[in-house]
Amino acid sequence: MSDARLPFQQLVLASGNAGKLKELQAMLGEQVTVLPQSQFVAEEAVEDGLSFVENAIIKARHACRASGLPALADDSGIAVDALAGAPGIYSARYAGTGGDAANNAKLLQALEGLPPEQRGARFISALVLMMHAEDPTPIICEGVWHGSILHSARGEHGFGYDPLFWVPEANCSSAELSPAEKNRLSHRGKAMAQLRVRLGLA
Amino acid sequence: MSDARLPFQQLVLASGNAGKLKELQAMLGEQVTVLPQSQFVAEEAVEDGLSFVENAIIKARHACRASGLPALADDSGIAVDALAGAPGIYSARYAGTGGDAANNAKLLQALEGLPPEQRGARFISALVLMMHAEDPTPIICEGVWHGSILHSARGEHGFGYDPLFWVPEANCSSAELSPAEKNRLSHRGKAMAQLRVRLGLA
Repeated sequence: MSDARLPFQQLVLASGNAGKLKELQAMLGEQVTVLPQSQFVAEEAVEDGLSFVENAIIKARHACRASGLPALADDSGIAVDALAGAPGIYSARYAGTGGDAANNAKLLQALEGLPPEQRGARFISALVLMMHAEDPTPIICEGVWHGSILHSARGEHGFGYDPLFWVPEANCSSAELSPAEKNRLSHRGKAMAQLRVRLGLA
Repeated sequence: MSDARLPFQQLVLASGNAGKLKELQAMLGEQVTVLPQSQFVAEEAVEDGLSFVENAIIKARHACRASGLPALADDSGIAVDALAGAPGIYSARYAGTGGDAANNAKLLQALEGLPPEQRGARFISALVLMMHAEDPTPIICEGVWHGSILHSARGEHGFGYDPLFWVPEANCSSAELSPAEKNRLSHRGKAMAQLRVRLGLA
């Protein structure tokens, strides 16, 4: 445990995703309380950026404005080689508003008939921490996790595309990893590890 | 010299600043030809971001759109402690359209009467490299250079606030450094060194 004194004790997570809140609180440790933006934000931000980092900035700024607190946002998604990087920044809404099940079904269909060696994919995470809405130097940390898309879902943990994401270094799907194992290996875990270093926590 | 094969041989520098073009070409080496955006861009981008990185993204995207080539943008400025971080992202237009001389004069006036220990400042650079205008994962590299603001201009090299920026580790102003020395120490030099690593050039 580091003795670093952070410039804040609370921060708002600019996300409505309970899975992300849990992951991020676990990775940041007890020194910081991660508050869900639902306590402050009436309407979610319009994520109209063209890159992960822009969408993370948009979300963090929106949460700063609503709460008056520092805010952390993650924008993440999956880029599939055979789909020229799709669904990418549109991962959460790949199949419209149908959620994880519909997104996963659409992805399986898009890759139907492709053998394992043509199913390469990577998870990407951009984390942005802003002290206030006009912070001129937000902290930006990015992580990438390389793997491939399975032919069917495996595992019960995680969320999003986790059940379809084969993790070569662990020989299982991302949804078969325990939360701690996933945090150690994942795109978001790598970005969070960088953030911990930037904050003097690691 | 690295043997890395870059995914491009030319890139557009999203800047009209001849000083930056010279610095960046020197730092990138011979493997890449840095083209000035004036060859492609009729009107400069509107830099209405609230952070250095957002302005760099805006400029890089504008140059990508105009040229059809990868583009590199730098947004940089100086943040003065006694001015609560001003002029910050507004450094280039601190004194309106008067350019370097007017900006430097305004900064000296703003700090008039302050002793050296209250004149701390830092140069900040955000570099963004985009492969195309909708690149979902632009490469972002940032650098910071700590120093302080002199009571009067010194030196003939560099541009912008260089004559007023005291460099403690070199015991001279930034404008008294040779271009090579400045590239080794400066905010932009540090960001470029990261970019070279990210591109496999270093």
